[in-house]
Amino acid sequence: MHSIERYREEFSSYLESKNIAKQPVNLYEPIEYILSLGGKRLRPVLVLMATEVFGTDYRKALDAALAIEVFHNFSLVHDDIMDAAPLRRGNATVHEKWDVNTGILSGDAMLINAYQLFENYEGETFRDLAKLFSQTAIEVCEGQQYDVDFETRDDVTQTEYLKMIEYKTAVLVAAALKMGGIVAKASLEDQNSIYEFGRNLGIAFQLQDDYLDAFGDPKTFGKQVGGDIIENKKTFLYLKALEMGTSLQHKELSDLFSIQPKDPSDKIKTIKTIFVETGAAALTQNEIETYTKKALKVLESLRITDAKKDLLRLFGENLMRRKV
Amino acid sequence: MHSIERYREEFSSYLESKNIAKQPVNLYEPIEYILSLGGKRLRPVLVLMATEVFGTDYRKALDAALAIEVFHNFSLVHDDIMDAAPLRRGNATVHEKWDVNTGILSGDAMLINAYQLFENYEGETFRDLAKLFSQTAIEVCEGQQYDVDFETRDDVTQTEYLKMIEYKTAVLVAAALKMGGIVAKASLEDQNSIYEFGRNLGIAFQLQDDYLDAFGDPKTFGKQVGGDIIENKKTFLYLKALEMGTSLQHKELSDLFSIQPKDPSDKIKTIKTIFVETGAAALTQNEIETYTKKALKVLESLRITDAKKDLLRLFGENLMRRKV
Repeated sequence: MHSIERYREEFSSYLESKNIAKQPVNLYEPIEYILSLGGKRLRPVLVLMATEVFGTDYRKALDAALAIEVFHNFSLVHDDIMDAAPLRRGNATVHEKWDVNTGILSGDAMLINAYQLFENYEGETFRDLAKLFSQTAIEVCEGQQYDVDFETRDDVTQTEYLKMIEYKTAVLVAAALKMGGIVAKASLEDQNSIYEFGRNLGIAFQLQDDYLDAFGDPKTFGKQVGGDIIENKKTFLYLKALEMGTSLQHKELSDLFSIQPKDPSDKIKTIKTIFVETGAAALTQNEIETYTKKALKVLESLRITDAKKDLLRLFGENLMRRKV
Repeated sequence: MHSIERYREEFSSYLESKNIAKQPVNLYEPIEYILSLGGKRLRPVLVLMATEVFGTDYRKALDAALAIEVFHNFSLVHDDIMDAAPLRRGNATVHEKWDVNTGILSGDAMLINAYQLFENYEGETFRDLAKLFSQTAIEVCEGQQYDVDFETRDDVTQTEYLKMIEYKTAVLVAAALKMGGIVAKASLEDQNSIYEFGRNLGIAFQLQDDYLDAFGDPKTFGKQVGGDIIENKKTFLYLKALEMGTSLQHKELSDLFSIQPKDPSDKIKTIKTIFVETGAAALTQNEIETYTKKALKVLESLRITDAKKDLLRLFGENLMRRKV
């Protein structure tokens, strides 16, 4: 087993080695561009790590890891168009640097390219990878659609919200780990266990993202603290506060979530107070804890050495401490 | 073997039987909508027909046929966004009826759904179908990009143009036929022959589309005659006229292809005269004839009965007479 940093470096070298100028330039340049912007490469690292956890050389998993990263970036390119986002990782988004049509078509090509990477695997491995990938990809689309739908609905339940973040974020983390299991020909039971580890960890991570958006340290959070509140995003904190609040708090919350003041600092302050006073903040932390524990619990059933379980546990803990 | 109409009906029933209301509604309703608009169902019919040509029950090929049709409609949804087209088959396009974001996301889901349909095939059949599909899909994207690129280039060669229409149109026709061969477990040689039949026929068909756009009968062509001329589209006719024309005709052609007069009737008339006088019209007809003959020639090598060869020949001839 190698360190996260080592897997990241190995993946980056592999990605660079695949950069051959392809025709037509206007289709492939945007793909090269978005893939070169970096990011934490969390998902491909998980593929490589899981492969070695199950006793197989990570190099066998490089194409599966690349497929996951290409897919992830496909979803970023299309999501950025839908959100009209000008920036991604501090750089111009594809549709800003080129145009919307280029973003659509290059994104489409990336989705197809991701499938093609599985062709480097034989027989059942190819089939299992492609099947898991399709299932995951369609869930990511469904998650994105739920997210869009929720913007204009005021009756979203916590269950629906949890399903949305599961589909939009967690299943791809889970699939990355399971792909390592597939490449390593781990037992179905182990494949499903590591998938569950990733799914629960992914939900915990996204809930924590909601929490930190309101209560995170501006110095370390990486995004603008209060961003979700400014955008009136119905996060788990918000739904929990609606459930727990008095009718007065309920009204104040709804009212504040229908305006977008020029200076949002008062609004952010009031909303955060409501999140604390209704108990939503503490209950969200409980929920994060519950999903994290579920993830760590499922590790126990994996038929791998304790040292390797410790590695996955450490990874999970570091991820939740945002140190990965 | 059944008639084209029978295959079309069988395919339509199958498509309808698959229409189960799925969640989230806003993702799946647009998919059901675009698939219900009909069209000639040419590509899925080709899958079914080719399967029976190679001696296998067409019902085994229904999922592959559906995959091709879903992919074709995916490409229409995304292309219509790129072209800002308001109408498709006489009805509102998806991005008009809903919005651009819905068109992007539903299109993405269709591309993934197409892959999932291959999961109904076992082992090597699954692999061969998915691989051919990816190769074809990426070529369709590349063809679309070339088409976009050509709009702003004035040095497009005839070779480049032929490659563009091959990728954008012909490879999907070819792949539809080959998929029938894959499902029927035909020999690789036969699979490749029927692919070549489809590829050449597809190029002939698209060249004929260019020709009929200028010289077709308004009563039977189905599209507005002169549409390409109005839009200054650099079709094969145009490129041939540039090659063959005198410097005076060359200049007149270039000048007319840089304007968009309110009443285009004079422009259309002049351009058509140039197409005839330079010999471009006759040479394009030659080219159509050449590709059609190539397609029919390759039929000879297929190891199927003469009766079945006759059927494919008849289909090709009827397609070129626009009677299918």
